[in-house]
Amino acid sequence: MVRGATLYSPVLRELEQVEATLDSLKRADSPRLSQMMEHVLSGGGKRVRPAIALLAGKFGRYEGELLVPLAASIELLHTATLVHDDVIDHAATRRGRPTANSLYDNGATVMLGDYMFAHAAELVARTGNIDVVRLFAHTLMAMAGGELSQDLSAYDYGQTTVEYFQRIGGKTASLFAAAGEGGAIVSEAPQPFRRALRAYGESVGLAFQIMDDILDFTGDEGEMGKPIGSDLLQGTLTLPSLLLMERYPKDNPVRKLFGRRDRARHLAASIELILNSDILDECRSVAADFRDRASRTLAELPRSPARDSLTEIAEYVVERRS
Amino acid sequence: MVRGATLYSPVLRELEQVEATLDSLKRADSPRLSQMMEHVLSGGGKRVRPAIALLAGKFGRYEGELLVPLAASIELLHTATLVHDDVIDHAATRRGRPTANSLYDNGATVMLGDYMFAHAAELVARTGNIDVVRLFAHTLMAMAGGELSQDLSAYDYGQTTVEYFQRIGGKTASLFAAAGEGGAIVSEAPQPFRRALRAYGESVGLAFQIMDDILDFTGDEGEMGKPIGSDLLQGTLTLPSLLLMERYPKDNPVRKLFGRRDRARHLAASIELILNSDILDECRSVAADFRDRASRTLAELPRSPARDSLTEIAEYVVERRS
Repeated sequence: MVRGATLYSPVLRELEQVEATLDSLKRADSPRLSQMMEHVLSGGGKRVRPAIALLAGKFGRYEGELLVPLAASIELLHTATLVHDDVIDHAATRRGRPTANSLYDNGATVMLGDYMFAHAAELVARTGNIDVVRLFAHTLMAMAGGELSQDLSAYDYGQTTVEYFQRIGGKTASLFAAAGEGGAIVSEAPQPFRRALRAYGESVGLAFQIMDDILDFTGDEGEMGKPIGSDLLQGTLTLPSLLLMERYPKDNPVRKLFGRRDRARHLAASIELILNSDILDECRSVAADFRDRASRTLAELPRSPARDSLTEIAEYVVERRS
Repeated sequence: MVRGATLYSPVLRELEQVEATLDSLKRADSPRLSQMMEHVLSGGGKRVRPAIALLAGKFGRYEGELLVPLAASIELLHTATLVHDDVIDHAATRRGRPTANSLYDNGATVMLGDYMFAHAAELVARTGNIDVVRLFAHTLMAMAGGELSQDLSAYDYGQTTVEYFQRIGGKTASLFAAAGEGGAIVSEAPQPFRRALRAYGESVGLAFQIMDDILDFTGDEGEMGKPIGSDLLQGTLTLPSLLLMERYPKDNPVRKLFGRRDRARHLAASIELILNSDILDECRSVAADFRDRASRTLAELPRSPARDSLTEIAEYVVERRS
């Protein structure tokens, strides 16, 4: 895990405050709720989204404490969507730890996610900035819309890579974009910086999700906390499986897998075909393109330790192994 | 159904605009999502919460169009929580129509609820008022907390009526209170009016939920769209069943029902015991007390058609049959 001294160095103090803010949310009214919040907030995320928000906050004239609730809100929004995603996917583990829905019932877990959304909204309101609230609302809309279209298109092998990029643009990149733009708004950065930081976040988010989708085929099951090929098994076509289908349009194991018979065998064949081709290299190169696009966007910002850190984050995102 | 010319007369025009706003949300990006939104927003609610928000908006110096997005936001927040509640309760019908979770899968339904929360947040941001955003966030927190404690205390017969009032205060009354307070804030009403309208909303909300819990035992199955005693069957103790347990602490069918054997028989015995006692009269009298408290609170406001309408709403709430 990174969360490291070098990668986030210009905002380490603020990241500590973000942790303290998240810790304070664990002290809920009921002991049971506290315990649930403790569980979901202690999963050891990489905190890459709040780091981006805090770093993006270094390009304006305001450098005060309101960036901390913004960054905490973004991390909380992210965690809340994971809680709901795990209910939807019936996931048993995440990062090697049991999911909330495996410990509590689905009903309580749905409400726990809602409770976290509420806290995220409350944190964003603490910025006192109605533009940030608007950004937050539009982001949640894009995220839910993206997840919904993923869910509605499950097991539909007529999907295209264009639809894939739209989907991950909503479900993942929109929050990275909001981190960049939100930091810029709160710090009162000039309009061109605001646009650049949003574009940076979007590109990093797309690269991040593509790497996630690659890791679903290559990752260490223990480290990832879920079995190899789990997306495919859920009926979710990601870039690797979409490229596989493009290359073998008439006859391929993914199509058979979605036929719902002999799933284990077709899944194994799909994974093998993907691993024994250059498909994952192609996916990595698409992710690297987004990393490069992110870096180029940063050229519109003045040189600073924060800008260097954002460049490193874009590089880290395409190199990560878990 | 009321939604009537007389009850809401001072705000009929604004209520039409609320409907138009909700209609506009049905035109989503994807046809499938539009269809889902259409389904959940066309259930024919009584629109009592947005009416309260609009009426509460008649006591300040501002009377402009920003009350409409506020009122629409409150109705949408309400509908979004119903969507999630129905997932949690595995409810098949609501008001005689199939629930979203019975038409779509649970995953899509959870995301649909999230998408609606996002739209509600966007509508509340349209007021441009950060205090209203804060109110919105705290309300969602109270609602999710109340639902969560209901879920966590299911089948727990150690519950008290005090816990019941806390729970319904969160899950139901907090949104009615927010309708009253939100209308007052947006219309820039003086502080004492704001407090009174919040207190009014809270009392009406408590009365509303108690009546709901009575109707679960007496309502027409067709009109309510769910079987008699469905709360008890879900393990949810409401005022009628709590009073039953208080009266027969040692031996009562509710306790046996929660033992999970011979459920149908114990449920029938519980319903019979409640219907053949004065328990429901006592519940109605508690609801009437909250109605009276709501009306007394209104005395702190200047006389006006809006105030008369709020009084009538409080009366309607305890008289309703579905």
